[in-house]
Amino acid sequence: MKSDLDQLMAARQLAAIVVTGEAHDNPPRSYLSNGAHVTGGYIIKRPGSDPIMIVNGMETEEAAKSGLQVLSHADLGYAQMISEAKGDLTKAGIALWGEMLRRFDIPNGRIGIYGVGNLHSQIEFTRLLSAAYPAYQFVGEMGLTLFDEAYITKSEDELLIIRSVAQRTNEVVAATWDYISGHRAEGETVVKADGSPLTIGDVKRFVRRALLDRDLEDTDMIFAQGRDGGFPHSRGEADMALQRGQAIVFDLFPRQLGGGYHHDMTRTWSIGYATPAVQRVYQQVMDAFDIAVETFRPGIEARKLQEAVLDHFESAGHPTGRSQPGTSVGYVHSLGHGVGLNIHERPGIGHLSPDKLVAGNLITIEPGLYYPEQGFGVRIEDTFYITGSGELISLTEFRKDLVLPLQDS
Amino acid sequence: MKSDLDQLMAARQLAAIVVTGEAHDNPPRSYLSNGAHVTGGYIIKRPGSDPIMIVNGMETEEAAKSGLQVLSHADLGYAQMISEAKGDLTKAGIALWGEMLRRFDIPNGRIGIYGVGNLHSQIEFTRLLSAAYPAYQFVGEMGLTLFDEAYITKSEDELLIIRSVAQRTNEVVAATWDYISGHRAEGETVVKADGSPLTIGDVKRFVRRALLDRDLEDTDMIFAQGRDGGFPHSRGEADMALQRGQAIVFDLFPRQLGGGYHHDMTRTWSIGYATPAVQRVYQQVMDAFDIAVETFRPGIEARKLQEAVLDHFESAGHPTGRSQPGTSVGYVHSLGHGVGLNIHERPGIGHLSPDKLVAGNLITIEPGLYYPEQGFGVRIEDTFYITGSGELISLTEFRKDLVLPLQDS
Repeated sequence: MKSDLDQLMAARQLAAIVVTGEAHDNPPRSYLSNGAHVTGGYIIKRPGSDPIMIVNGMETEEAAKSGLQVLSHADLGYAQMISEAKGDLTKAGIALWGEMLRRFDIPNGRIGIYGVGNLHSQIEFTRLLSAAYPAYQFVGEMGLTLFDEAYITKSEDELLIIRSVAQRTNEVVAATWDYISGHRAEGETVVKADGSPLTIGDVKRFVRRALLDRDLEDTDMIFAQGRDGGFPHSRGEADMALQRGQAIVFDLFPRQLGGGYHHDMTRTWSIGYATPAVQRVYQQVMDAFDIAVETFRPGIEARKLQEAVLDHFESAGHPTGRSQPGTSVGYVHSLGHGVGLNIHERPGIGHLSPDKLVAGNLITIEPGLYYPEQGFGVRIEDTFYITGSGELISLTEFRKDLVLPLQDS
Repeated sequence: MKSDLDQLMAARQLAAIVVTGEAHDNPPRSYLSNGAHVTGGYIIKRPGSDPIMIVNGMETEEAAKSGLQVLSHADLGYAQMISEAKGDLTKAGIALWGEMLRRFDIPNGRIGIYGVGNLHSQIEFTRLLSAAYPAYQFVGEMGLTLFDEAYITKSEDELLIIRSVAQRTNEVVAATWDYISGHRAEGETVVKADGSPLTIGDVKRFVRRALLDRDLEDTDMIFAQGRDGGFPHSRGEADMALQRGQAIVFDLFPRQLGGGYHHDMTRTWSIGYATPAVQRVYQQVMDAFDIAVETFRPGIEARKLQEAVLDHFESAGHPTGRSQPGTSVGYVHSLGHGVGLNIHERPGIGHLSPDKLVAGNLITIEPGLYYPEQGFGVRIEDTFYITGSGELISLTEFRKDLVLPLQDS
């Protein structure tokens, strides 16, 4: 969590970290600014100190929402720098960095640059910084970065927000169930009052509106029916009409509007009735879900949960990624993942995962079985928090019923 | 436009350009992929050839929507690279680049890297690429980049999409007018059927839903009433009730859902009636708008339009950024800007702009006057396209009435 940053900086021998880039959908910026969406400027953090925001004068009010110390570009003499650079904003930007390094007493050494933004600009700007301030090394980082490591455990402050996002997502899934259920069928096709088919596009539009009404935004939900649901990454075809007796995989993973924390949940619904094949597989997935939860112990290696689920599915005769590497049918993915400012974070819950499950983790558990040639896929997913006392508690509160009845059925 | 890319690459002595980064809200990727939202992978372009997409196997279907040649990671032998790297994805990624450079016969030289993504990863990856392939220089670019130059003029293909986004935005503004107009006032406060105040938050929620229903997304609209409207960047306060007789600046600049082309328009509305002060200033802004349009000639220096508007406002006694540099009242910004995949592009239409206005430009014209201490601001904005025959045509089709009547007024 955030309080780990000093230790994570020390491990990387970083004299400071600087976050830059976009105002929205920029996890390192959201993280350090406590969710304030500031356009432009920098957040600088030295070891042992709180981050400081350096922002355009117009952004000071938004920046203040962070609760951090805020300095404007003017406070650092930026107007003078632009004037001295004869309007060359790149040169003035280099001078602004010089002033930040001086003003905040950053010792010579490694400066980590983080954020989401224009790659082409930052590649060139980093080259120019290195030339201008040769006593510093301006460095990036790949793989499990300092931020990725910090994200792995969530603080109580973050949990408050995360719970609220979960609650609102649950409401949207409940509203979607009710919305579909309020329709009727003609033959096997679900239709609206005027007799026209209810399509996946209609449902997604309903869901997006319901999210927006709760200050959440869709990040490309899955609502995939029949054969499409058998491909874990199929989003579903907008013009496809909902059909009775077809399994629908509904995977919703919205985030706070403008970027922020996610909730991740999946339900599989079959409208009106479910075929015996889907019922059987659904029960096996539900059993896998329960096995994963029962296997959990605080501190357990994450792969143990995946192994328990692999054992279960393999003993029921399903191909898995362990028994048949590269299989595209049966159980083809890992059991879950961390979730937070990014939809996929550590810990990973696959059979090769090096991670343990510990207090503060926010993780998904999402077993599934995929048989596109049989015309269906099934997945069930909740998001769980591991409490300080080591309890695994689900933040996803919506029934796990397979059959979604229509009003006139 | 896109057909300029070869010449723009030559001017930068680039042997190839490679686009990477996010699937969404990544203008260089949208531009080269013709709007296909592909997660991961690369788009590589050599001089004189169409771009080629290199994508994860799961993304081949989405990538095919680009109309470009698509190769999967598997086609380039990525599985073998991962295996040889013993699962180290950074090493395998470096090998994948080596194969791209070899497979596409990229001569030694400068490789431009573009896109929006994780800055920290790309800084480090670029360093590793430079070390692995010293015959190449992997470079970024600041300021007016190759893409920024290409964006300045739009092709007929782009115009089709841009017209559709404009049309849908116009519909949303019309729907918003009707929505507000359907309310009544109690005293000066606009209220809902139940007598509770209609707030700016209510209106924004309505607008966001109306956008979503048309596959558009809000990018932080301005709906600022009274004094707030006097600050050009104030977004408006969500809990403020709409009031009769207060000028409201409504600046809407949505884009295609998931990232794509924008439309940019502003109307100033005063509910029920307008005060004499607002009426007078509104007319001056409308006159400025007409003066700008009348001043336009194909090939004209953009600053001439701004100068005509500055002359007009100054002769009416308003402070401007030319007569009183740094003023925060009167006419405080430039007349307009290019718009496209980015909300702000070249050409700029300020009095220091070096740009000419030429066929293919998509530009805003948006004069405004700001007097927060008098409790109002006024801005009017349309987006215009300059046709091949040099006509300036507005894509913004919504009435420019100041007074928005309520149903019961």
